[in-house]
Amino acid sequence: MNVEKRIELAKRRADLNYFIYLNEKAVYEVEAVEKAGRCGALCGLAVAVKDNIEVAGMPITNGAPYMKKMADKTAPVVRRLIAEGAVVIGKTNMHELALGATNVNPHFGPTRNPHDPSRITGGSSGGSAGAVAIGVADLGIGTDTGGSVRIPAALCGVVGYKPPYGKIPTEGVLPLAQSLDHVGFITRTVADLIRILSAAGWGPSELPRPNRFRFAVLMGISENTKHVEKAFWKAVGILESIGGMRDEVFIETGRYAAARAAILLSEAAANYYDYLRGAAEHMGNDVATLLSTGAALPAVAYITAKRVKEEATKFFDTLFKKYDVVVTPTTATEAVPIEEADSIAVRPKLLAYTELFNLTGHPAISVPAPTSGLPVGLQIAARDEDVLLAIAKAYEEEL
Amino acid sequence: MNVEKRIELAKRRADLNYFIYLNEKAVYEVEAVEKAGRCGALCGLAVAVKDNIEVAGMPITNGAPYMKKMADKTAPVVRRLIAEGAVVIGKTNMHELALGATNVNPHFGPTRNPHDPSRITGGSSGGSAGAVAIGVADLGIGTDTGGSVRIPAALCGVVGYKPPYGKIPTEGVLPLAQSLDHVGFITRTVADLIRILSAAGWGPSELPRPNRFRFAVLMGISENTKHVEKAFWKAVGILESIGGMRDEVFIETGRYAAARAAILLSEAAANYYDYLRGAAEHMGNDVATLLSTGAALPAVAYITAKRVKEEATKFFDTLFKKYDVVVTPTTATEAVPIEEADSIAVRPKLLAYTELFNLTGHPAISVPAPTSGLPVGLQIAARDEDVLLAIAKAYEEEL
Repeated sequence: MNVEKRIELAKRRADLNYFIYLNEKAVYEVEAVEKAGRCGALCGLAVAVKDNIEVAGMPITNGAPYMKKMADKTAPVVRRLIAEGAVVIGKTNMHELALGATNVNPHFGPTRNPHDPSRITGGSSGGSAGAVAIGVADLGIGTDTGGSVRIPAALCGVVGYKPPYGKIPTEGVLPLAQSLDHVGFITRTVADLIRILSAAGWGPSELPRPNRFRFAVLMGISENTKHVEKAFWKAVGILESIGGMRDEVFIETGRYAAARAAILLSEAAANYYDYLRGAAEHMGNDVATLLSTGAALPAVAYITAKRVKEEATKFFDTLFKKYDVVVTPTTATEAVPIEEADSIAVRPKLLAYTELFNLTGHPAISVPAPTSGLPVGLQIAARDEDVLLAIAKAYEEEL
Repeated sequence: MNVEKRIELAKRRADLNYFIYLNEKAVYEVEAVEKAGRCGALCGLAVAVKDNIEVAGMPITNGAPYMKKMADKTAPVVRRLIAEGAVVIGKTNMHELALGATNVNPHFGPTRNPHDPSRITGGSSGGSAGAVAIGVADLGIGTDTGGSVRIPAALCGVVGYKPPYGKIPTEGVLPLAQSLDHVGFITRTVADLIRILSAAGWGPSELPRPNRFRFAVLMGISENTKHVEKAFWKAVGILESIGGMRDEVFIETGRYAAARAAILLSEAAANYYDYLRGAAEHMGNDVATLLSTGAALPAVAYITAKRVKEEATKFFDTLFKKYDVVVTPTTATEAVPIEEADSIAVRPKLLAYTELFNLTGHPAISVPAPTSGLPVGLQIAARDEDVLLAIAKAYEEEL
């Protein structure tokens, strides 16, 4: 699909609310690059950029109108893709300040699930995931502080990848919680993802198909819906069919979840303290409440949480000596109806599995699990990025 | 002086309160090593170890009887010296938990200044500094989180060196505030210090004498006593006489001091939270008050302070592009009488200059300034450790 048609499609599906800003000049940008003969390995790749990432000449809101400004620089992660011929199709709708996993944005409206527009996309990179799912974009760039790339990828039926902590530069990306923030990528397939990572210099072009590998299903973390449970175990079956030797490992993650929350809320409160004092009346209730909670946390809780973070990292490092990868459902629930998104029960159902790897910094991917209904994600995490991507690719080919 | 005589001297001067534990077996330890022919570059070097550093087979208190236990391992920093033939002469008295700069310990008594026993040694490594000053030890090992090596060295008329952050391992050293904690060394001369660092593999054996160098006197940080002021400017004159080209640089350090305090108190409270809850009635008032303050600090203050720490480091990194070294008095006051040590005015007078380089992590040394009365320290800080030590050595030779 050419860029003109993509822009048309985005406009036609404005009801889904994926874009805060559409780059109407994208058509000319592609032409200019092609004419100049500067079109590289990603020539014409349409990229949807989450609206907490700066692209020069486009407005940036962070999902919060009170933060709106024009960006005069382009974040290095986007610049790298543009240098290979990619074009930015627009800036995508997100959870306000990226501080939430539902993507129900009170200012720009909720992003709507492509498989059922009455339901959430998940977030906070919901616009980027949706834009990829309906084909407006080939690549969605998002940020992931507790699962914000993997969660909407899972709920929208696409692929969401959080590289290892620190690998992709966060310069030009508005911070939420620096100890947990990752930049991540959303594509329709693992093959696309690998091709893009390779073209941008972030990964190898060839990944040998694994023969045999050991994997652990992490148990005891959350209770899944029946729909998730069914699709997840089918996905586990596929991993076995491609050479995976399975164990089940029960882990207790309550302390990890509490530590992730303490770090997230403390650092977010430090980042948005001035807005909390000056613009709280413009904020969504959920965001204002979370920031206020963060502002009230004691330093001792934060420091203790950072120590638990180190423990968690060591725990998983040890686990990854025994297993090539570990797997979970990406989320414990499929996409919920938008009017139920505020429920206190939804947040942990969305975050319980993904947030573990924000705490540890290990790479993790969400790939679609086999299902006939609403999409379900299989999360695969590893210590070694290449092993992770090779297994995800083999899984996709078998699927 | 042989080890036997050193132990005798330590006992004779028990009034000065430098030791919490004297290693009476030191005599046999030296003999055994000599007989075995395993005596290295530091053969017979008498080392006084601050009582927050583990030496196997000796008790450790951290200056707090409620923490007393036997150590079953030796900290790597001490092990390295022992491997070269050094002998541990005893464990030295310190400020309780290392959380203070006066060394007035309510449990083990105040350490008394060798130049006037009615006055403080400063701290928190006051016992190590005193033991070196009276010749019981050749080397004092201390810790320095805000100046705890440099301050007592200055007040006792010896040399105190804080190497760059992270250089000397802190394993086996009880933490006070991990982001600021350094292990440091106290000797009678810079020449001794360089010889010991070199023998232990922590520094070069030869340091070329500098011809010309640029230095900045940092101004506007604290008001000095007349006695300090006079000795300090004489010391500056010596630096000029050995090729130093002087500038004066006014800096505003209020934010840095506040950030250092927030980091110190938050991390100390996290480290000693259980003792604060269970043993506060056994603690000195000053320590209990500081820990309680730390426990009440918000995470946002801590996170903001860590950002100021990064700013301060960048500021000094930039300054060190223009100047080879910067200098200040080590402390703004000479040793105060023990009964005045509690005064609220004393703490900043002791810490204002030294704490800057705990925040930035740059190496800093205190060397004696020329004076006929109570000792005064000249603090020299640099980006490059070798440059710092070479200039300190040239200064000492001129002195």
